[in-house]
Amino acid sequence: MNPHYPRLILTEKVCRSNIVKMTDKAFQSGVTFRPHFKTHQSRQIGRWFRDAGINCVTVSSIRMAEYFVADGWRDIFIAFPVNFLESDRINKLAQNTRLSISLDAPESAVQLDKKITTPVDVYIKIDTGYHRTGIQASDHKALDKILSILKNSTIHHFKGFYTHAGQSYDAKDQESIIQIYKESASLLNRLKARYLGDFPELIVSVGDTPSCSIVHDFSDVDEIRPGNFVFYDLMQWQLGACDLSDIAVVLECPVLGIYPERNEIMVHGGAVHLSKENLLIKGNSSYGLIVQLEGNSWRQPVEETYVSSLSQEHGIIKTNKMFINRIKVGDTIGILPVHSCLTANLADQFVTMDGQLIEKMRS
Amino acid sequence: MNPHYPRLILTEKVCRSNIVKMTDKAFQSGVTFRPHFKTHQSRQIGRWFRDAGINCVTVSSIRMAEYFVADGWRDIFIAFPVNFLESDRINKLAQNTRLSISLDAPESAVQLDKKITTPVDVYIKIDTGYHRTGIQASDHKALDKILSILKNSTIHHFKGFYTHAGQSYDAKDQESIIQIYKESASLLNRLKARYLGDFPELIVSVGDTPSCSIVHDFSDVDEIRPGNFVFYDLMQWQLGACDLSDIAVVLECPVLGIYPERNEIMVHGGAVHLSKENLLIKGNSSYGLIVQLEGNSWRQPVEETYVSSLSQEHGIIKTNKMFINRIKVGDTIGILPVHSCLTANLADQFVTMDGQLIEKMRS
Repeated sequence: MNPHYPRLILTEKVCRSNIVKMTDKAFQSGVTFRPHFKTHQSRQIGRWFRDAGINCVTVSSIRMAEYFVADGWRDIFIAFPVNFLESDRINKLAQNTRLSISLDAPESAVQLDKKITTPVDVYIKIDTGYHRTGIQASDHKALDKILSILKNSTIHHFKGFYTHAGQSYDAKDQESIIQIYKESASLLNRLKARYLGDFPELIVSVGDTPSCSIVHDFSDVDEIRPGNFVFYDLMQWQLGACDLSDIAVVLECPVLGIYPERNEIMVHGGAVHLSKENLLIKGNSSYGLIVQLEGNSWRQPVEETYVSSLSQEHGIIKTNKMFINRIKVGDTIGILPVHSCLTANLADQFVTMDGQLIEKMRS
Repeated sequence: MNPHYPRLILTEKVCRSNIVKMTDKAFQSGVTFRPHFKTHQSRQIGRWFRDAGINCVTVSSIRMAEYFVADGWRDIFIAFPVNFLESDRINKLAQNTRLSISLDAPESAVQLDKKITTPVDVYIKIDTGYHRTGIQASDHKALDKILSILKNSTIHHFKGFYTHAGQSYDAKDQESIIQIYKESASLLNRLKARYLGDFPELIVSVGDTPSCSIVHDFSDVDEIRPGNFVFYDLMQWQLGACDLSDIAVVLECPVLGIYPERNEIMVHGGAVHLSKENLLIKGNSSYGLIVQLEGNSWRQPVEETYVSSLSQEHGIIKTNKMFINRIKVGDTIGILPVHSCLTANLADQFVTMDGQLIEKMRS
């Protein structure tokens, strides 16, 4: 049978290199590397992390935790505010793995011992400036309340403070990203100093890929949890967190229509494959850049060429006369994704450059 | 076990009513109703169409065609430019169903008889102003070429001209949508008149949900193919194509964080559940509006309240003091989607108001 298009091509070599680079950096800083697996959601790619010596991971849902526990992972942090509506799944899961959960409100701490009856480790989410979730680093009243509850818990163990400094995605340059990292680490370390007496083993943990890619020395924190770096994407490239050659996934799409009168190409590859995440690249609102797949690799993106709009299954590429003349219906082209987490989430599997299928969690 | 959140709630009564209303309208106009199944992608919902007397359908991929053939559908149009890279799947599929494919370039017509060896019906896609795909209605040269090839084909049958007047999604008011419909129908009918001598059975077919919802009488075309109307959504509501009470799907999300200092609520419900389709509603860039689920229904959206940003799994809702005071962590709220096709595509199943699971095609 013909292959099924569009398909998400994964360059194993680039992906493994991204894994090894981040692992080495964490090792050299002497911090724990607890990678976020929400980006790849794949047992097989998880095993590449094991090959690099990783034994603890982060996920964003109970379901994802269940999936990785089934593949033998035994130290998993669900970095998402605990949802007591799913307590029985958490209780069951915690019987089979060292499970960490996330608290981000005093009210949740009150319910903890009642709802979660299997021992878990507890991280407290701190808002260090992203203002998405978490307790303000300055809100000692809320933190005192949660920590007095945790201190009295007979079953659960307080693990430490963590943050996701997602404001790094809006940073203007690398210097600002380093600044965001420093501020986050400093806020967490002040909390660590405040509570270390009561919890001598408490750790502080940071997470975003821009910071973890750009900062060289993490020795002022105890743990890093980046996820996106495993594949990278155009958003990270634009932030200076990676080179184009570090991007490990590309959507291979058949060319189905060519419209020279408006310098447009239509491919099978739409919002259900790429997601509708877009990015201003050289002044154009873009859903992806175009590469030509040649043998086992791809080169620089085609100039003056980008995905300008997406329907459910169609992608429209704006380009120039030169590329229009080079391409024909029936060819396939590659699209570098804006946000690889969302693109990978939409794929039912990955395909390596040499045609091997890499399974992932099904949505 | 607790239910798995977030979950896509489907109001069966509203959905069946949308189906029956569109079926009746098509019947009264004396046209064929070939609904697009890409919105729901569900065998069970497909059967609700069968209950309404429908026996021919539209899909957007070979895979979706395979899925519905497996449930007994025997007249399926893949309304997406044919991809000869998948010829063997098309040939196999056409053995089990009356299959229609779409041509939108003379070059594709040249390859047709060579690549597609099982008889199929062929629609030609006409661009009536959307400029996404299709042959310009005025491009008689290209059409003459394709039709002379089809006339000489010994295996395939020319079915007719079809369009998707997607420019209706950018229309300012209902009058403009009616105008777009009339222009599209008129362009298709001029082509019909031109080629009817050679193809006395040729039909013309139109498709977009805004036109099909707002226009009352379709008697100037032969077939309609809307899809989104089965669920509708905020985009259709804003276009005047439906009432809020016609929206049949709502994402039920647990409230996991409340931030009174910035009037924000955080729910489990992100880009991997809703998609990143957004819409300007009352001046706010919104990923959804909020409803409270009460028993078997929901009422009007909560005022001054909308989904303001989405991460992979998190949704941030901007709201007012009144709603902040009414809601608590552990509650669930409903999000009306901006674009139900993309939201439904991301769900692994639907759940009816009374808790029944409705299966759908897995991505």
